[in-house]
Amino acid sequence: MGSRRVEMDVRGQARLLSYVDAFQELPEEELLALARRTLDDYEYDARTGIFGPEDGCENVYVLKRGRVHVTRGDGPGSRATLDVIRSGSVFGTLDPDATQQGARAEAVVPSLVCTLPQQDLESVVRRSPGVGLALARSLDRRLRTIGELEARMRGKEAPARLAIIITRLVEDEGVVGRDGYKVPARYTHEELGAMIGSNRDTVTRALSRLRAAGLVETPDGTIVVPDLDALERTAEG
Amino acid sequence: MGSRRVEMDVRGQARLLSYVDAFQELPEEELLALARRTLDDYEYDARTGIFGPEDGCENVYVLKRGRVHVTRGDGPGSRATLDVIRSGSVFGTLDPDATQQGARAEAVVPSLVCTLPQQDLESVVRRSPGVGLALARSLDRRLRTIGELEARMRGKEAPARLAIIITRLVEDEGVVGRDGYKVPARYTHEELGAMIGSNRDTVTRALSRLRAAGLVETPDGTIVVPDLDALERTAEG
Repeated sequence: MGSRRVEMDVRGQARLLSYVDAFQELPEEELLALARRTLDDYEYDARTGIFGPEDGCENVYVLKRGRVHVTRGDGPGSRATLDVIRSGSVFGTLDPDATQQGARAEAVVPSLVCTLPQQDLESVVRRSPGVGLALARSLDRRLRTIGELEARMRGKEAPARLAIIITRLVEDEGVVGRDGYKVPARYTHEELGAMIGSNRDTVTRALSRLRAAGLVETPDGTIVVPDLDALERTAEG
Repeated sequence: MGSRRVEMDVRGQARLLSYVDAFQELPEEELLALARRTLDDYEYDARTGIFGPEDGCENVYVLKRGRVHVTRGDGPGSRATLDVIRSGSVFGTLDPDATQQGARAEAVVPSLVCTLPQQDLESVVRRSPGVGLALARSLDRRLRTIGELEARMRGKEAPARLAIIITRLVEDEGVVGRDGYKVPARYTHEELGAMIGSNRDTVTRALSRLRAAGLVETPDGTIVVPDLDALERTAEG
């Protein structure tokens, strides 16, 4: 578990930036200028923190590859992971008046991240207004996703909430295998708990119930869903 | 309960638009141009729906005055109100690919709202990139607020969650009175439930407990908090 600086030439950086939602409209020369302004790329191992609650907000983060959980709150049962950052997204605090991140960002799979000073992001937006529009739309989609998931989970028991999150994980990051859909990332019960608003023990029990019902298998710490339709019916439960 | 069109000249409309976060940077002539493009202003009574799940996404909404709840999910105990729109905000779906709002927006106090075709918002952003930046920042703050509230509520019992939401309502919309802080909007127990993730009966019981402990009073359907510090201690539960 750790992170290391990745050496990359400016063209390679620009190419990866071109896959970022907010930067897709940028012409080649703007991408190169942006690549020159970004700080070093870092490769984070799974389960490695990218920023913590006390970190400052002078930089925003660009997830070039991987997957990052933004988690708030501490203490058992009170951690909340609402915001899952996908490859090609900008994350961190965009508020120039904020002084602390307040949240914790952690790579859940190996992730390539670069940072960009907030003022540089602002100057890119001012020169290329499409970037601001794309940023706003991407935040709007994140807000919408969070709202939809929370609404689906409200009033449901832990096994149904877990089924909701697992179907979501399959949609987002599942791969098709011989035995069904597989979520390759190894989520801990605590991490799943932060996503469904339960503590670790409740997740362990809920997972046992889903396993006993044949709805999920957990070979080697991964999650396999043999019959997605059946899991979705439980999610609606 | 209902809504009615409000006649306003273009200068009056432009003046109200200048109070909207995202439009604060716009020069006078851009505000006037924007005012000419916005559709009619409507005044919504408290408890009146502005859009529903099946409504299209061709327009975004500008809350010029008032307060709006964005709620997802239906059925008892599964409604979730995560996103509270404050006066001076843009709301609705910014995603040009979305075909349905998916959510329900309702005025919780009398509110003045105008609509703006999505393509017109886009052209304002393209001409005035500061608007896109401000929009992104405002969505980022909403995302952050939702995350903070959810994290604070996780793992807590209903009375503590209710105390969290009431302290939040006091901060956001409270007025100081002789007997303490007062939240003038009359929230129903169902609405409070959608904010804390409980059903109406649970809210009724939690409210009774807070009342019995002298932490809140509910004269005439409003909420009065005699001692905010004491309520905050309960919120920390």
